[in-house]
Amino acid sequence: MEKIKFQLDEKDLPATWYNIVADLPETDEPAAVSPTTGKPLTRDELLQVMPEQLVEQETSTEREFEIPEPVRQLYAQWRPSPLFRARRLERALDTPARIYYKYEGVAPTGSHKPNTGIPQAYYNKLAGKTGLVTETGAGQWGSAAALSASFFGMTAKVFMVKVSFQQKPYRRALMESFGAVCIPSPSIETAAGRAILAADPDSPGSLGIATSEALEVAAQDPTLGYTLGSAANHVLAHQTVIGQEALRQMAMADDYPDIVIGCSGGGSNLAGLSFPFLGEQLRGGPAVRVIAVEPAACPTLTKGSIAYDYSDTGRLGPLFRMHTLGHTFVPPPVHAGGLRAHGIGPLISRAIEERLIDPIAVGQLGCFEAGVQFARTEGILPAPESTHAIRAAIDEAKRCREEGQSRAILFGLSGHGHFDLTAYDKYFAGQLDDETVDEDALTRASASIPEAPLR
Amino acid sequence: MEKIKFQLDEKDLPATWYNIVADLPETDEPAAVSPTTGKPLTRDELLQVMPEQLVEQETSTEREFEIPEPVRQLYAQWRPSPLFRARRLERALDTPARIYYKYEGVAPTGSHKPNTGIPQAYYNKLAGKTGLVTETGAGQWGSAAALSASFFGMTAKVFMVKVSFQQKPYRRALMESFGAVCIPSPSIETAAGRAILAADPDSPGSLGIATSEALEVAAQDPTLGYTLGSAANHVLAHQTVIGQEALRQMAMADDYPDIVIGCSGGGSNLAGLSFPFLGEQLRGGPAVRVIAVEPAACPTLTKGSIAYDYSDTGRLGPLFRMHTLGHTFVPPPVHAGGLRAHGIGPLISRAIEERLIDPIAVGQLGCFEAGVQFARTEGILPAPESTHAIRAAIDEAKRCREEGQSRAILFGLSGHGHFDLTAYDKYFAGQLDDETVDEDALTRASASIPEAPLR
Repeated sequence: MEKIKFQLDEKDLPATWYNIVADLPETDEPAAVSPTTGKPLTRDELLQVMPEQLVEQETSTEREFEIPEPVRQLYAQWRPSPLFRARRLERALDTPARIYYKYEGVAPTGSHKPNTGIPQAYYNKLAGKTGLVTETGAGQWGSAAALSASFFGMTAKVFMVKVSFQQKPYRRALMESFGAVCIPSPSIETAAGRAILAADPDSPGSLGIATSEALEVAAQDPTLGYTLGSAANHVLAHQTVIGQEALRQMAMADDYPDIVIGCSGGGSNLAGLSFPFLGEQLRGGPAVRVIAVEPAACPTLTKGSIAYDYSDTGRLGPLFRMHTLGHTFVPPPVHAGGLRAHGIGPLISRAIEERLIDPIAVGQLGCFEAGVQFARTEGILPAPESTHAIRAAIDEAKRCREEGQSRAILFGLSGHGHFDLTAYDKYFAGQLDDETVDEDALTRASASIPEAPLR
Repeated sequence: MEKIKFQLDEKDLPATWYNIVADLPETDEPAAVSPTTGKPLTRDELLQVMPEQLVEQETSTEREFEIPEPVRQLYAQWRPSPLFRARRLERALDTPARIYYKYEGVAPTGSHKPNTGIPQAYYNKLAGKTGLVTETGAGQWGSAAALSASFFGMTAKVFMVKVSFQQKPYRRALMESFGAVCIPSPSIETAAGRAILAADPDSPGSLGIATSEALEVAAQDPTLGYTLGSAANHVLAHQTVIGQEALRQMAMADDYPDIVIGCSGGGSNLAGLSFPFLGEQLRGGPAVRVIAVEPAACPTLTKGSIAYDYSDTGRLGPLFRMHTLGHTFVPPPVHAGGLRAHGIGPLISRAIEERLIDPIAVGQLGCFEAGVQFARTEGILPAPESTHAIRAAIDEAKRCREEGQSRAILFGLSGHGHFDLTAYDKYFAGQLDDETVDEDALTRASASIPEAPLR
């Protein structure tokens, strides 16, 4: 048989999470600034919203964090996830490229998000919290938070970006089936939500707004732990189980990627796959070209600038040093809801500054086209977010054909599209467009980036 | 770590399908009768609608059929599927029972159906067909047919029972994303459909009606191969990869099931899991109690009788010797659409006659209750069909607790519920009832069973 699946054994489940900070050059610039003091964010401030172990991981320069046994036990239900060689897609493209994908859709909620949901729920449970509160864009993270809370007997309250709430009613139902409460954001439940609604009753919402709502609720109820699905250092570290497994699986395939591709929103899927490969490179191993693929409708990496900015619209949380379009930016309602983030994880921005990651932006229609080609060859319907990585992988494979080069391309298939079929329906009906963003909106939003946050 | 997942290697993928006919007592009664001659169905008649290899499998008394390499190659994308020990559910039930489940939701379309879709597409392709035509109830089979056709570069046309078409719009979209055409049945595309609509414009459809439509289209176009998702001997055989793997996985768990449970519609999921265990028993191995769980709304096994009856309402296909409620029976619109079949695979009926399988019927509400308990403990949202097996497994586990007995219970988790979230939504909103069927409807339908079909 032609080898298409590279499946690790349960005993090969990573024992630690990888922290790329240990391998990046040191920096004098703090990653985060307190919204109240204007000084570098302190451990004590972080401890007010996060359990000790997560604060430790958030601020550590250690290379590895041990994965607690109860977390590995839950990971083992679907991890190690499979890595596939996309031979049927290769043949359809008539490319000499070797295309591989790491498939995270085998998780119970169909994406990579439980990789961080489970440890966050675990540490919050240890800290005595009885419930979780969080925000979600497309609902992949919200579903994972709901699942993770149910695994530990905790409640979950999820503020979901309103446009996604409307586009993806099944995501809400999935969260409810795990016992969570899902609220469209902006909502009237919080001062932050009410302020947005007063200014714009038809606001489609944004991750920044939903984050403000979740932070506000967490601040008012000490029994609730605030959790987040992307961007933070500890979240990116949790996701490195993906890339660590992929490293071993590429070895099983007797190959090594020339190119690693991930879709890019808050950065956790991209980091999860690519950081372990970048770690090898930084420690003297083989070089890889890492491509971050973002939607043209939310060009955080390709049109944003690195600055200290809030990750939440209501300016309740810290300011992060990151690529940002400005915290007031509200992206057009593209279906890749998980990629509609005005900012990104500070470690992704560091990696781009270090020229370790190349960002590109692609339009929605080309992504759906790639997703359908992938479904019809590989048999897996991808999430709209993941189609961004597929688009870039197909383009690179076509370039290999043109150049007569056989490169190994590894991309992250971060999730399946079972909850995104209204989007595919609209695509087939010709009801989608490329949803680019106009320069005026970018200019207006960038004006919201604070000028001198460090006092 | 506590062992919860039993994962076979790719090399352990079964090499053959198992045919229980070889181990059942011989019978003089033909399994099928020709609708035109009134005599036992001949090979030649079967060859008119089916490729040679499938006819061979349909009529064979050999114990094993070799799985062609291209089929195993495609199986290998997600097979062997995992077998889990449901330890968190056990703890929630405080039961001494050891509960195991074989999870088929890892297939690209989320259920066991591609196990037979792929070989049927393969053999039809070999026979020169360029497209497939079929019927589907809940859409699990239709999705698998669409996927399988796309794997072999064939078209697919799927007649979907109208009530399911309306309840599960995402199933249609999934089929379309694989390139298939999906038509609500009864439709105006066929004489069979038009006849039903003339009598009842609001007909919710049934598998029997959709089968007539698909058979009619196939009969009129020699380029199309008719395929079917359940009931036939060869379909049941294809599904035995499930039980063969489970046998090995139970050995990995150093255990053996006392009870094997499957939900029951056309019988392919039930047979796929249970027949390999029954084969062991018939050849002198350990005895298992096999429970077939059907919906109270469509009590084919518990209230039907064994007779020769049509599997399709339009009486185009053969008559099968099977449990039947009568081919005019239209079950209430329960959400377990895949279990709304008036008849069942003849081999299931034989196994029941031989006292190898015990049938039970359960109400829809208890099934959703069990499904939600399963989701909140095991983390996987089950398909409404699969919740029937979960209901019975939980009840058996509770019995173990009451009796202070530790039995090993293995059930088939035939698919996930990602496409069934409107059903869960309605369940949570209190909008579902148990949809039992009244005696008058059963009496009327049973009058449609032919009295003396064998001439």
